[in-house]
Amino acid sequence: MTKVLAFDIGGTKIAYSIIDENGCFLNEVIKVSTPKSAAGIVELLKTTVKGLEDEIDGVAVSTAGAVNNAGTRITSVPGNLPEGYNQTDFMALTTKPVLVENDANSAGWAEFSIGAAKGCRNAVILTLGTGVGAGIIVDGHLLKGKSGAAGEMHFPVDSGHKRVCSGCGMFDCFESFASGTGLNANAREYMGAEATSYDVIRGLKEGDHQARAAFDKWQDYLIKGLIMVANVFDPEVIVLSGSMAKFVEYDKVSREVNGRILTQPFELKEAAFENNAGMIGAALLLIARIK
Amino acid sequence: MTKVLAFDIGGTKIAYSIIDENGCFLNEVIKVSTPKSAAGIVELLKTTVKGLEDEIDGVAVSTAGAVNNAGTRITSVPGNLPEGYNQTDFMALTTKPVLVENDANSAGWAEFSIGAAKGCRNAVILTLGTGVGAGIIVDGHLLKGKSGAAGEMHFPVDSGHKRVCSGCGMFDCFESFASGTGLNANAREYMGAEATSYDVIRGLKEGDHQARAAFDKWQDYLIKGLIMVANVFDPEVIVLSGSMAKFVEYDKVSREVNGRILTQPFELKEAAFENNAGMIGAALLLIARIK
Repeated sequence: MTKVLAFDIGGTKIAYSIIDENGCFLNEVIKVSTPKSAAGIVELLKTTVKGLEDEIDGVAVSTAGAVNNAGTRITSVPGNLPEGYNQTDFMALTTKPVLVENDANSAGWAEFSIGAAKGCRNAVILTLGTGVGAGIIVDGHLLKGKSGAAGEMHFPVDSGHKRVCSGCGMFDCFESFASGTGLNANAREYMGAEATSYDVIRGLKEGDHQARAAFDKWQDYLIKGLIMVANVFDPEVIVLSGSMAKFVEYDKVSREVNGRILTQPFELKEAAFENNAGMIGAALLLIARIK
Repeated sequence: MTKVLAFDIGGTKIAYSIIDENGCFLNEVIKVSTPKSAAGIVELLKTTVKGLEDEIDGVAVSTAGAVNNAGTRITSVPGNLPEGYNQTDFMALTTKPVLVENDANSAGWAEFSIGAAKGCRNAVILTLGTGVGAGIIVDGHLLKGKSGAAGEMHFPVDSGHKRVCSGCGMFDCFESFASGTGLNANAREYMGAEATSYDVIRGLKEGDHQARAAFDKWQDYLIKGLIMVANVFDPEVIVLSGSMAKFVEYDKVSREVNGRILTQPFELKEAAFENNAGMIGAALLLIARIK
């Protein structure tokens, strides 16, 4: 049974575990705070790999940032990771096979391989967190584009300079409305300067009208993005993952989007995996390459 | 040398010619008015095929409407073609190989194979005509989706119920702003009830301020769509074709879009082929299948 050491590298924490070819975790997932320097991250990765090298067939890395098509290095600097992290030489971690993949792509591949999009050939997995990420499967393959950066969910969905996107700097960008950051902005707009998305979700359960307005605005922009995704990709399924996915009103959103598209109906699903999808997807991509 | 009879079937005319494996026309392109009934279209296709059957290795059809993934039939009813046209049994036209493909996909394939996107692996070809069509090439393959309908350029790019899309019925859809229909609407809005896109283009050359405003609004929405396409697909090149493509200010649009995207820069180009791209693309797709 092939098994690999899988890392998930984010701005606040790094998680790792050993995963087998069925996508099963062979030990508990370890989580540590992300070191404050690029050298610190490399040191952590090296030490971890060294300690487990005899047990594994390779190292899979799911990371924030765009990853090149060869799966060897990061091509953009993720804003929430230390300067110089994009220079990391992942290939030098071990002499065994190493594969790097973007975290939204990795999570998408996990859902496509053994999760909510299993059995599909065309699927889009949207990660609704602080921002919005996308793992896009086209005819059974990850959509990567010329430089590995495909799936950036930044595009104008409004006009009138309503809101600036912290991810791309544009006005009226999808991510600035349909992300957790977007719901926080709605909370402040409808419920007061101190309100957050937590207040929106709590207020929603209590029947608060302002909370409902803040939430509906968030969900309406999500619907706009899903219409684009469905019309452009004609997928069998769209999967929502990430911290915001559990708040979505699936039946209502699915009905609205399917009622407005020109392509054939798709299924809207919540992700099968939570935080560990990135590790699973990167591991499965590497194991497929090894075999 | 393999050669096929290629048709281009649109709402107002049907064109056909014989095309070889280099994409060259072996005779003049014949154009006839599209018959008013589905039976009339079938009759025209049958008669034409019969007269040329001995000279050809197959029949390629570029058509309005979504085409299934097998390339055998139409799955949606194009609004400007007669009722029942979607029932057409293209496979019964001849015992030789037959392939059907959507016209925007066919035009995209022609540009990708031997036109403005030649040598690329990832390219998006937008046809700006009465509506907006897209032929999308992902890692050397046509993006078709689960049912063959992928590439519908219908998605909200504004809010406030500004304009209804005649293609999908949604408010504030990309196509209703960035198409020729969109420029006509701008003409009426800025230049008076009788004005059309022709007045905009003429006024633009004459330095008319209202014409400039109407044109800029059209081009600004095109920019919105190109930002989406570039961020989501990360293509090497975006090609603009169709009757409106010649009016685009390529340098300005390219600079604006490339300045706002998170993916690597792409090249914006005008299509190499004009009206005959659909026939060429369908022919090349069929010839590749025959070989």
